[in-house]
Amino acid sequence: MRIYLAGPDVFLPDAIEVGRRKAEVCARYGFTGLYPLDNTIDLAATVTSLQIFRANEAMMDQADAIIANLTPFRGPGADPGTTYELGYMAARGKLCLGYSNDAALYADRVRRFTGVKQHHEHLLDAEGMTVENFGLADNLMMIHGLELHGCALVRPRQAIADLWHDLTAFESCVRIAAGRLASAPASG
Amino acid sequence: MRIYLAGPDVFLPDAIEVGRRKAEVCARYGFTGLYPLDNTIDLAATVTSLQIFRANEAMMDQADAIIANLTPFRGPGADPGTTYELGYMAARGKLCLGYSNDAALYADRVRRFTGVKQHHEHLLDAEGMTVENFGLADNLMMIHGLELHGCALVRPRQAIADLWHDLTAFESCVRIAAGRLASAPASG
Repeated sequence: MRIYLAGPDVFLPDAIEVGRRKAEVCARYGFTGLYPLDNTIDLAATVTSLQIFRANEAMMDQADAIIANLTPFRGPGADPGTTYELGYMAARGKLCLGYSNDAALYADRVRRFTGVKQHHEHLLDAEGMTVENFGLADNLMMIHGLELHGCALVRPRQAIADLWHDLTAFESCVRIAAGRLASAPASG
Repeated sequence: MRIYLAGPDVFLPDAIEVGRRKAEVCARYGFTGLYPLDNTIDLAATVTSLQIFRANEAMMDQADAIIANLTPFRGPGADPGTTYELGYMAARGKLCLGYSNDAALYADRVRRFTGVKQHHEHLLDAEGMTVENFGLADNLMMIHGLELHGCALVRPRQAIADLWHDLTAFESCVRIAAGRLASAPASG
């Protein structure tokens, strides 16, 4: 099984090393991890954004599953590029898995991020826009998309020191994928 | 043609009115606008997040196209729930259209949002993570996803006074959809 490794990890200073570690975890469970940076065939050459897009989409089309890193990125919610990919894989019927290394609920994160105020039955952010307050870790589309197209979001039980390098929740996703494969009826 | 009207508009204080105005624009071009809030069948009853998800996904499955509002939301990029939906519709082969009412480029928005610094050939944010610097309005997955699965992101030529109520760019998307339909070979 090939697993597409989605997430803002590609923007880390040690993005290549993080991808290598994720692929190693996958290999331990008998999977092939497909990491977007593996697409940058020739880092010396000028790679256009369109080439990266085409390569990422081709990787998603080759993959049987996605593990999306939904750890909040530049705001209270997940990276929008990563959630685009999660929606893409859900619609293609691929096995959808995801994790966040942030233990907080979405509404509490918005509270810290912009401040919130209660207005009748609604929670509003600083701009006066309604804050989703269902006790979920992020926007309901991703949370329930994972549940219905794969497996519930994996979250840490306690605060994690290094949000971007701790692979415990990531490995839980890989283990869940391995369990799904073991319990799936044999095909072919 | 039925168009799914995606965007953080559903979080506005006047979300229902905005949806009504968007549906009116669609009707003027002969389309049916499907707006997520139309799903909250009984606002008095307790609607669970899972019911909202299922209703939104069913609406997307019924729709022939999506117009995604990618105006930045609670951060420098688009709403992650909306981009999930855009990826979903792209993978289903639906016509993908989108707009942003913010004229700025992504890198400039991160500059205002967290500050950035130049490090060799890379632009880094305050956390030291690489900032996409391709001269695009947002993450390349959405920008090129729109180009390859529909039409390029519609952006304003100049700053817009009311980011959340100006429907000029939205109407441009509807007009583009109408043009696509007019030029498509007749079927059925």
